[in-house]
Amino acid sequence: MMDFKTARKIIEQELEKYPFDSSPTELYEPVGYIISLGGKRMRPALTLMACSIFSDAVHPSLKPALAFEVFHNFTLLHDDLMDNSGIRRGNETVHVKWNPNTAILSGDVMSILAYKILSESPRDLLPDLLQLFNTTALQVCEGQQWDMNFESRLDVNVDEYLRMIELKTAVLVAASLKSGAMAGGADEPEADLLYEFGRHLGIAFQIRDDYLDVFGDPEVFGKKIGNDILTDKKTFLLIKALELSEGKIRKELLGWLEKKEHDPSKKITAVSEIFSSLELNKISSELASSHYGQALQYLDRVDALAERKAPMAEMAKTLMEREQ
Amino acid sequence: MMDFKTARKIIEQELEKYPFDSSPTELYEPVGYIISLGGKRMRPALTLMACSIFSDAVHPSLKPALAFEVFHNFTLLHDDLMDNSGIRRGNETVHVKWNPNTAILSGDVMSILAYKILSESPRDLLPDLLQLFNTTALQVCEGQQWDMNFESRLDVNVDEYLRMIELKTAVLVAASLKSGAMAGGADEPEADLLYEFGRHLGIAFQIRDDYLDVFGDPEVFGKKIGNDILTDKKTFLLIKALELSEGKIRKELLGWLEKKEHDPSKKITAVSEIFSSLELNKISSELASSHYGQALQYLDRVDALAERKAPMAEMAKTLMEREQ
Repeated sequence: MMDFKTARKIIEQELEKYPFDSSPTELYEPVGYIISLGGKRMRPALTLMACSIFSDAVHPSLKPALAFEVFHNFTLLHDDLMDNSGIRRGNETVHVKWNPNTAILSGDVMSILAYKILSESPRDLLPDLLQLFNTTALQVCEGQQWDMNFESRLDVNVDEYLRMIELKTAVLVAASLKSGAMAGGADEPEADLLYEFGRHLGIAFQIRDDYLDVFGDPEVFGKKIGNDILTDKKTFLLIKALELSEGKIRKELLGWLEKKEHDPSKKITAVSEIFSSLELNKISSELASSHYGQALQYLDRVDALAERKAPMAEMAKTLMEREQ
Repeated sequence: MMDFKTARKIIEQELEKYPFDSSPTELYEPVGYIISLGGKRMRPALTLMACSIFSDAVHPSLKPALAFEVFHNFTLLHDDLMDNSGIRRGNETVHVKWNPNTAILSGDVMSILAYKILSESPRDLLPDLLQLFNTTALQVCEGQQWDMNFESRLDVNVDEYLRMIELKTAVLVAASLKSGAMAGGADEPEADLLYEFGRHLGIAFQIRDDYLDVFGDPEVFGKKIGNDILTDKKTFLLIKALELSEGKIRKELLGWLEKKEHDPSKKITAVSEIFSSLELNKISSELASSHYGQALQYLDRVDALAERKAPMAEMAKTLMEREQ
């Protein structure tokens, strides 16, 4: 088995080996740039860790791990452009540092590079890995489309929200885990348990992310607190607030959503207070805990020694207790 | 063996079977739209025709053929956005009919769909097909980047131009042919002959395209005559004109390139006359003919009965003699 720290280190070393600096430089430089911005490397680390539950050799899981990481960064690159986000991991996003056309074409190259890396997986695994990757990649795009569709709607319900984050975030975590299990020699039902573990963990992770944007400690949380509130993002908190609020509170919330000009810190304070008054910190934490609990149940059912699964359980716990 | 008309009909029928209308509709509708705009279906038809040289069963070549066609349409979708082109095949481009974000994300989905379709190829061919597809797809992006780089340069030389169109256009034609040959059971050297045939044919095709933009018959040519001149596109004609022109003519040409405001029809007439005075219609035709000739030599060397290769030679001839 392998812990997160070790897995992450291997991923960083492998990513450094990749020459994301071919010619023309205008095309490949942004690829190396966004990869070098780092991040938790959660998905590829989970791939290696899933493999290590079933096998002491994690080597067969390396290519799928890297493919999922490159694909994930490709979606970030294009999402930042579509969402017009200027900052990613404390640095300028590609379309700001370069320009929108560069972001489009370098992103396109990254999605192809992800497939190229995946194609270097062990031959006997390739057809199944491809099928998993194709399905997942399409779902991630569908999730992003639902997220964009939600922008102009005030009637999004919690089920729709959960389906959206499942597609946009959770299936990629799930597939990263499943591909690792497959590479480790797990049979289909076992690999599917890891998939379900990852799906619920991914959902819990995103609900936690929405929570931290509002209730996180600004000293610890990497991003600016309240950013989702300022952009009227249809997070779990806002969707649930629109569902639960009545009378004066609802009127005030809708007022903040309609207002085009406002003092940012006033809006953040006011909307956060509405969320608190509706006990959304509690409701949100409970929903995240519920999915975290379901995730752990799937991990429990995986037919392997508890000690082999311990790093995975530890990783899930860390993700749920994170403040950033 | 199979002629172009038959191959094209099969491709159209197969494309109609694909449900490019999944949910969310905002994501998939533009995919169905751009596919339905048609075009010559040259690449997938060539795949089937190449397969039919070596085998009476073209079925194994269907998936690669469709994958290349979907990938080609993906590149058109994103290129139109990057080039800010409003019209494609007489219809509004996706980013105009919908919006830029839709063009980005629907394009992303198309590139994944191309891989999904390719993944349904016969299992024994899959690893080699993937490698060919990955390499080619990256080259196409590199070609588009070079093309964009050329926009701000006046010193592009013919070699650079030829390398650019090789990447942007010719390798996709070449790979479409090679994948068909592979699916037909051709061994590597034979498949490579088809690749070289396609590479030279693709180069000849693009030089012919540049020629038709200026010297084509406006009654027959599908696009507006002179569009490349108006956008100062670094076509073979402009690059060669910048290389050959001297004195007064060169000054006049540079004047038209620098001028921000101008009467469009006057610019088209004046620049076309400069091209003619430098005998670029002749020089351009000769270069296209040279690559066409080289293409045919590679086809000749393919180890198959002449009658099996006849439809391919016929197709190449039609492409070179086309007026649109």
